[in-house]
Amino acid sequence: MSDSPTVASLIAANERFYRTFESLDYAAMDALWEHSDRAFCVHPGWPPLHGAKPVLESWWRIIGNTSDIRFALLAVTARVEGTLGIVTLYEQIQSVAGGGQQGSGAATTNLFAFDAEAGMWKLFHHHASPSPLPGGDTETPLN
Amino acid sequence: MSDSPTVASLIAANERFYRTFESLDYAAMDALWEHSDRAFCVHPGWPPLHGAKPVLESWWRIIGNTSDIRFALLAVTARVEGTLGIVTLYEQIQSVAGGGQQGSGAATTNLFAFDAEAGMWKLFHHHASPSPLPGGDTETPLN
Repeated sequence: MSDSPTVASLIAANERFYRTFESLDYAAMDALWEHSDRAFCVHPGWPPLHGAKPVLESWWRIIGNTSDIRFALLAVTARVEGTLGIVTLYEQIQSVAGGGQQGSGAATTNLFAFDAEAGMWKLFHHHASPSPLPGGDTETPLN
Repeated sequence: MSDSPTVASLIAANERFYRTFESLDYAAMDALWEHSDRAFCVHPGWPPLHGAKPVLESWWRIIGNTSDIRFALLAVTARVEGTLGIVTLYEQIQSVAGGGQQGSGAATTNLFAFDAEAGMWKLFHHHASPSPLPGGDTETPLN
């Protein structure tokens, strides 16, 4: 693996995160995350998790409880600010979990830090929340 | 107003954002935001908004449709990375809108950039999503 602190590489790292999730390979998911106090994760509908341990435990549980999951990544934006990468996107999700199949969508903020020693972008902040498709509707709820 | 690119100042800027929202003063809210393409906003349950114009229009609509709103800011974390400020928190919200009163909670990511010329932190990314209170429950839904 050899990333560089560029927008193209950041977009690839973000794509890799979703393909890793689809692979349901916990060890690969663990390797994408920064193991630090600032690790932060909001799964859709979950309370926020702080720190690498609870964040990685949540991935262990989710991967263990998911039979199949596929993502389409829409409206991806990616910006590099020094050694930080800021990604926003809309996730279109198809999953099989707990015996049921479901389709859903999420608005997501992903923050990466470029780890020069490892030569890769590490994810330290994933905030995904249930959301209607952007641009699908001119009427939006008023809080 | 004179901020500095420190954690204490970042926490104060984040607090100011919520007190400004409570004041329902649109001009003051407009002044807190970075007027740029990277302006990004997810209100709880809304689709993502990209760019200063749609983001500020959403604030205009929300402020115009809200009679009263109060925030308690819980589990605030703030980190400064160069000229970027990364804040996470849990918002406990009491609002009156459209004739009804409601209490709700949101997990939130706020990103600020330090504007040296203006001498203040500007908000460019607000992602708030409906969330149960963190730590209130050991059982969390599995996707």
